[in-house]
This record gives sequence, structure tokens and C-alpha cells, in this order.
Amino acid sequence: MKLIKSISWMQRLSLKAKRAGKKIGLVPTMGYLHQGHLELVKKAGRLSDLVVVSIFVNPTQFGPKEDFNRYPRDLTGDLAKLKGLGVDYVFTPSAKEMYPDGYQTYVEVENLSKGLCGDFRPGHFRGVATVVCKLFNIVQPEFAIFGEKDYQQLKVIERMARDLNLGIKVLGMDTVREKDGLAMSSRNSYLSKEARVQAIFLSRALKEAKKLVEQGEKSAEALIGKVREIISGNTNGRIEYIEVRDALDLALVEKVDKPCQILVAVWIGRTRLIDNIRVQPKNSKRG
Amino acid sequence: MKLIKSISWMQRLSLKAKRAGKKIGLVPTMGYLHQGHLELVKKAGRLSDLVVVSIFVNPTQFGPKEDFNRYPRDLTGDLAKLKGLGVDYVFTPSAKEMYPDGYQTYVEVENLSKGLCGDFRPGHFRGVATVVCKLFNIVQPEFAIFGEKDYQQLKVIERMARDLNLGIKVLGMDTVREKDGLAMSSRNSYLSKEARVQAIFLSRALKEAKKLVEQGEKSAEALIGKVREIISGNTNGRIEYIEVRDALDLALVEKVDKPCQILVAVWIGRTRLIDNIRVQPKNSKRG
Repeated sequence: MKLIKSISWMQRLSLKAKRAGKKIGLVPTMGYLHQGHLELVKKAGRLSDLVVVSIFVNPTQFGPKEDFNRYPRDLTGDLAKLKGLGVDYVFTPSAKEMYPDGYQTYVEVENLSKGLCGDFRPGHFRGVATVVCKLFNIVQPEFAIFGEKDYQQLKVIERMARDLNLGIKVLGMDTVREKDGLAMSSRNSYLSKEARVQAIFLSRALKEAKKLVEQGEKSAEALIGKVREIISGNTNGRIEYIEVRDALDLALVEKVDKPCQILVAVWIGRTRLIDNIRVQPKNSKRG
Repeated sequence: MKLIKSISWMQRLSLKAKRAGKKIGLVPTMGYLHQGHLELVKKAGRLSDLVVVSIFVNPTQFGPKEDFNRYPRDLTGDLAKLKGLGVDYVFTPSAKEMYPDGYQTYVEVENLSKGLCGDFRPGHFRGVATVVCKLFNIVQPEFAIFGEKDYQQLKVIERMARDLNLGIKVLGMDTVREKDGLAMSSRNSYLSKEARVQAIFLSRALKEAKKLVEQGEKSAEALIGKVREIISGNTNGRIEYIEVRDALDLALVEKVDKPCQILVAVWIGRTRLIDNIRVQPKNSKRG
């Protein structure tokens, strides 16, 4: 496992591997790795000949008042966790090299970046699409894997790769959860003890909504009401959104008559948590 | 010389060529080829193992009131002109395949797209950067060549390729001119006889300004005044802009104390013409 800091060196190594007919799998991360990341890495290993994990806390996807500076970082710990997982290269460029003086090019996925997190984090998905486009061009993988916890992000990146003809498969993978259901996230490290207890009600509420759908409930309004009731009743969190969307194109839905995603964002104390769950009517053929 | 219409087929051919160690050169065009394009093609041939010419009238770079529909098209004529120039593939995708239903991703080069043509053609350079990014990803060339007549476009594309780490060299090539100095352009076909006579004063004015610089004039204001005087005195054209800019980053300059570009856009009748010229002080070390 080699640590690569230089963009041009990474690009050269990738080109060489491609020319040798090797299939490259990329796992883009912002580091402070948890089990969710490691599952992505293992899957990449199963599907490719050469695994690249990028670790880059991307400044352009944080708003001016967001947590870029306090975002947790631990490269030594990350490298220890990756050991033995068959990673070939850990790519850790500097912000200065990724965004040199005069940098001015941005990629925008217009519709999918609107609504949900896009409404509360202006510019966030522009930063995500831009950095992922850059990482794709640098590493030139055959596929890249992302966790479904960041569902809207996954949809934005899928669309970007398709629209810009990047020729790269974008794969999603089930959210990995703590035993009590909390979706794993580097930001969970922000949670106080009290907040950590409250945080489990995001996934609990989503599971309850899923049960309702399995019992025949189709009304988005009713599902949202149930999720809100559980989160409001058990936490002092501030709800940003609770929404039901088409699982494929994130269109707003009123009725769950096809595969849908219920998505939530809640501030528990100073920590913003997101989660989502797939729901589909009993006889759905899609999904 | 093979005609390729399908994006995925072009992508596969390029990948195969790259794997075989071949160096691909791309000449992106909107067709209705003139001698300027053909010089780009010849240069691509000298620098590469495999030449791809793309012909695609890109709808996203035209404003709603611009000339997308009447833009001249003549694929048969274009193929005849390319014969014998060593072109391997002519890539002519449909707009429907380049921008399928649900398409929503755009590339923006923020600063360089402002000012000059960017002010008069809102969205134009966003469309250019987007389609060129797509073409680069599809054809995966080692380099691409563009004419310097579209100087701001060249700068936007250079920056886009660098910022997004495309790993593709962007080359500019001297504007090819008619005997009387008019910069070659597919849009020259719009000119009436009378307008054609007036059109020569763009390049004449620019040449006069260059002479002034060679005689020691450094003031951008004086140079702009001279160009305006010649164009206004000899045509009934409507001047959109006459500007002096830093040749490297297109920053506005007041004094020509480094390599600069004088750029003009003028409507002669119903035809919008652009042209530009490099000027530099006698002892300039740059450029």
C-alpha cells in the first residue's frame, strides 16, 4: 500500500495500470474512516485489479459557516485501518494542488443538486461534483463506490458521470450501521453522549415508516408525519427536512407506488445528521 | 476515414487505440469546414498517430436568439474536404445522444467566461466548456487543437482542461485568413457582398494597432481609439467590444507592457464577426 500525494504521479500510475489492462476501482473518501468506508474498500477489492482510496477533505463542498476546519482528520489511523484490505494506493493530494491559484472551473448537476441537502447547503453538490470529476480524471477508474447514506450525493455523481461521458461506473453500497441502527458517519464523532442517544431515532423513525409501507401505507404525508412524530417525540433535534422522493430521479412523490427513498436531515446539538431508507410498495416491480 | 455516430462506439475505438499505445489528436469543430479547420487537422496529423475530427453543432453554446438553426451545415462537403488529410475518424454524434432526456450537467470556467464575448453571449462558454469536456472524455485524446480566432474560447478550454485534471494538452493555432486579411469563419458565409467588403476592416484595424505598438504606443485607450476609428470610419458595423487584455489570463490592461491581445466583436449587418491580434512591447520577454 503506497501513499501518493502528487496528482501527476497518481495520474501516471493509473495510466500505466490501465495500459497494462488492469481494472482500477476507486473509493473516494474524506478520511477519518469507519466501517462503512472499509466495506466500500473491500467491495472495490472484490471487483477490481487495483484499488485506490482517496482521502481528501474537499474545501469546495463546505459552506463558509460549515465544519471544514473542525472536520475530523487522522491519516495515521486511516492508514492503519486500510492495512490488510488489499489497497494499492492511498491518494492524498493537498488542497493547494487540487485548487491552485487561478482555479475557476466547477461542475454542476443542476436538478439533482436542488432540494434536500442542496437547499440547506448551497454550493455543496457543486463542490462534490467538481472534486469527484477531478478525482475520476486523475485516477481514471473503471468504477467508483460510494455509500448510500449520502443518497443525494450518489445520485448527483451517477448523473455527472453519465452526462459528461466519463465512462466510469458509479456504484452505491448499503449504509453500514452501528448495532443500534445509527448510520456510520465520520461526523458521529462530534456527538456528545446525550446526543448520541438521541441520534438513534433517525434510523428508528425511518424503519417505522418502512413498516407502515409494508403494511400498505402509500401516503407520503402520512409517512413523513410518522417520522416527524418519532424524531420530535424522542429528541430535541431540529429537523431540516423529512421527504419522500422517487428512488431513481429524486422527484417529489405524494404516493409510494414505486420504489422511493425517505430522507431526513436533523441537527442533534451541533451535529447535522442525515439518513435515508428505501421503501417500495409490496407489488413493486422496480428496484 | 470512418464516420462514427455513436458515442459508445467512439469511446471504445479510442480506448482500443490508447491501449495499443497510440497517441490520439482531436480537432473539435462545428463543421462547415474552411481552410482554418483544415490547417488544424494537418497539424493534428503531424503530432499524433490517430486523428479524430468531431463535427457537432452544439446547441448548448447558442443563446435562444442566436443562429443555431441557420448555422451552416454540409457534412458531405466536409467529408470531401477532409479526404486525403489522414483523418482516421470523423465523429458526428446527434444532439439527442449528446444531451439525452434528463441531461443536467454543466461545466463552468468562471472568470475567463466573463467579459468580452461572455458578456454578449450569456451561457455561451458554459456550453462550450461542457461540450468540449464531453468530447475530451469520449475521444480521450492526448491533445486537442483549436484556432486562435476564438481566443477567449481557447483560454476557457485550456483552463478547464487544467482545472479538471483532464490530462489533455490544449493547443492553439494561428488564425488562418483570407488573402485580404479576413479571419476565416464558417459564419463568413452569412456575409452579403457589401458586408464582405466592410468585414476586412476588423483585421485592418487590428494590424494598424499592432503597428502602433511596434512604434512604441503602450496605452490601451489609444489603441482602442485607433481600432474604433478605423472600423467606424469604414463600415456601418455595430461594435460590441474593442478591448486590450493580458494574453495569458485575459485580465484587463491599461498599458501594453507585456504580451497582450487586442480583441474585437462587430456586427456587420446580420453577421457577428470576431477577431484578435497579439501585440507586445519591443523588449517583452514573455510570449
